[in-house]
Formats: sequence, structure tokens, C-alpha cells
Amino acid sequence: MESGTIHVKGEHVRISELSERTGVPVATVKYYLREGLLPAGRSTGATRAEYDEAHVERLRLVRALVGVAGLSLAAVRAVVDAVDRPSDSVLEALAAAHETLPPVAPPGVDTRAAEAVVAELGWHVDPACTALRQLAVAVASLEAVGAASDTALLAGYGRALAPLAQAEVASVPTDSPGAAARYVVVGTVVYEPVILALRRLAHQDASVRRFGADPQEAAAGPGKG
Amino acid sequence: MESGTIHVKGEHVRISELSERTGVPVATVKYYLREGLLPAGRSTGATRAEYDEAHVERLRLVRALVGVAGLSLAAVRAVVDAVDRPSDSVLEALAAAHETLPPVAPPGVDTRAAEAVVAELGWHVDPACTALRQLAVAVASLEAVGAASDTALLAGYGRALAPLAQAEVASVPTDSPGAAARYVVVGTVVYEPVILALRRLAHQDASVRRFGADPQEAAAGPGKG
Repeated sequence: MESGTIHVKGEHVRISELSERTGVPVATVKYYLREGLLPAGRSTGATRAEYDEAHVERLRLVRALVGVAGLSLAAVRAVVDAVDRPSDSVLEALAAAHETLPPVAPPGVDTRAAEAVVAELGWHVDPACTALRQLAVAVASLEAVGAASDTALLAGYGRALAPLAQAEVASVPTDSPGAAARYVVVGTVVYEPVILALRRLAHQDASVRRFGADPQEAAAGPGKG
Repeated sequence: MESGTIHVKGEHVRISELSERTGVPVATVKYYLREGLLPAGRSTGATRAEYDEAHVERLRLVRALVGVAGLSLAAVRAVVDAVDRPSDSVLEALAAAHETLPPVAPPGVDTRAAEAVVAELGWHVDPACTALRQLAVAVASLEAVGAASDTALLAGYGRALAPLAQAEVASVPTDSPGAAARYVVVGTVVYEPVILALRRLAHQDASVRRFGADPQEAAAGPGKG
């Protein structure tokens, strides 16, 4: 811990400070450097190098992908490569980065039910994209377990999520296609657990409101379960 | 495949038909029987047994937990035990079943930020519940990667999800606490991938609307990424 160090944006820092600022242990930073997930720093001596704001950003990206999304290093590399690949437009960069995120959806899956939902919503979606196949797999699971999967119901889910997604996309930085892609990748994976936890808490609140007023009444029934 | 079999609700069927109706292979059904995840059928001979609608429901539950949520058999057993445990009320059964669902959230996690979000929303939530700790872990991840995590933003996510959760809870059957718990467990896990896939598709649509009109303009910037 080096006290008195002022972290100015754009300043070059040593590996120990890079570790402090990101919460990623030095040994892990070195591992990411060896694996090529983090670009080498600017050499300032035989055994020394300095790192900048781009390294901080990259470490946060890798940390989000490994620590939050639970990706393998190979999967992280695919995301990082997509983020680093030069793109002609923000839209192209976003699409390329999005494609690399799990879960894996098999190419042969029947996407008709998913396409019907997207059509009902009037959304602009690439029919070959991974997210459409992810939805197709999810809808097939609903059918397999006997849960409701009709187009109108699923479009209702989509309509509820659209304002959130619009707000998220509205905050995407447009400095460069790469910065936009990095932002979207991090935002996509780190807010997913937030959304799922909030939904469960919302279930709890709704259950208390529906069943909590009179437990005896709510528990009525033949008790066959 | 036995043609001409009519599947009447409440009818007793043999293991082959149980397999056909649920899409779970006979060998897997036998495995679940041995592991106690599926109760034994009604014996109709030395090597024969018959199964009923409760077995179909249970297989769908196990399939949702293993196939969709990716739970270990030990984790499935915990959920099944919670669903089977007699409860005095639907609310108690729902809470007990909810508690068993992953992801695991450590007991010592600081839940203050999560509690602030719930307070902002005015939700009725058990301060000791797992979902609150799941939200706390998710919020800590946002902070770790430098993503926005202020209470107002997260409450906005909650507000968007509340109508969905209310609709879901409104459709919970009240035949018995056990049936309600089974429904909520299946619904919680099988719609999660649907929600995440729809959010990604909504991102795509919002990106096309924001960045798609003029790719050259959208790509403007120093290209430092």
C-alpha cells in the first residue's frame, strides 16, 4: 500500500496500484498478462512496466466476465477479441460482442416460436443472432416442463423489459465502437444477476400481498400437494 | 411407442408412458426413482408399477431444475424436499421453496445497499431471505466493475419487473401449499433464461434504433477503443 498516491485519470501506474484500483490480486493480473487477456504495460526498466486507464478498463471487463458471468478463460478471450476487433460502426461492434456471450445456443435449434415473439413485438433483430436461439432454447424448455409459452405472454415479458433495455442502450458511450462494445458486454452480464434477484424479491412482495393477509384463507384447499 | 393410448388426467400409466409424456428417458426415470427424487409408483406386480399425474408433475419439476437451471442432484433434492414439506400456508410454502434455489449467497454479505433498494420500492421482503443476499452480491459486483449501482437506478429495474412478478404470482394455483410451491419453483427457474434472452434481443432492437440510422455518424469518434 503506497499512501499519498493520487490517481489521476490517464496517469500511468505500476502493477501494485493497478491491482489496488481494480481489486484484482497482483498474481491474477500477472496471469492475465501471460494469457494475453491484458495487454502488456509500457516497459520502464528490465522488470518494470507501467499501466494506464485502458488496463483498468480491461481488468474490469475480465473481472466481470470471470467473476460475475463465470466464463472460462477461453470464453473471455473470445469476448475480448470481439471487443478489440476494429469495427466500422458502433452497431457492428455491439453485435459482434453480443454474439460471444454465453449461454451457447445450438445452431440447429428451431427458432420459429422465438421469431413469432419478436415479430409480435415489432423488434429489429438479426434472424441469425445468438440471442434469438437463446430465446428459442428457453421457450423449448417452457414447453418441456408444461409452463405457459404462448406468444402473447412472452411478448408481454418483452414489452416490460423494453424500457429498461432502451435506457441501458441510451447510456452506451459513443467515444468509439470498442468502448461501446466493452460497455455493452459488461452491462449485459453484470446486470443479469441484479435482474434475477430483483424478480425474486418482487415475487416475495407480490406473494405477501396476495397470500399474506389471511394465512388461513390462503392455505385453504384439499392439501393434495 | 404404444399407439392408441389415450392419456386421461388422473389415469395410471406404466414407466414407458411416463417417459413418453415427459420426454425423460426411461433410464433417467429409473435413476430418479433410485435416488428418491421421484416417489415409487403403485406396484402392480413383481417388476411392474404404475404412475400417476403426481409423477408427471414431479418429473417436470426435476427436469426444470436439472435441465434448465442446471442444478446438481443434491440441490434438486433440497428443492423437492422443500416442496414436499407440509406447510401451514401458501406463503410459508413459497418462502421455503424460494430459499432453496441457487445461486448460493454467503450469509455474511453486507445487505445494506440491497435493503435500500427494497425500501425505496416499498416491498415486503424478509430481511433474512436468500434473494436479498443474492441482490447484495449482484450489487457488489456492479461496484467492483465500476458499473452504476445507485439505489434510484436499481429501484427503476425493480419497478419495471414488479408488474411481471405480480402477474406471475397472480397465476399461482392455490389448490394446496405444495402445488403453489412447485408452481413457483418451476416458474422462477424456467422463465429466467427467457427474460435474459428477451433483454438481449431488446438491446439489439434499441441499438438498431439508436445507432442503425446512420452507421457513419454512429461510428464517429477518435476510435481509441
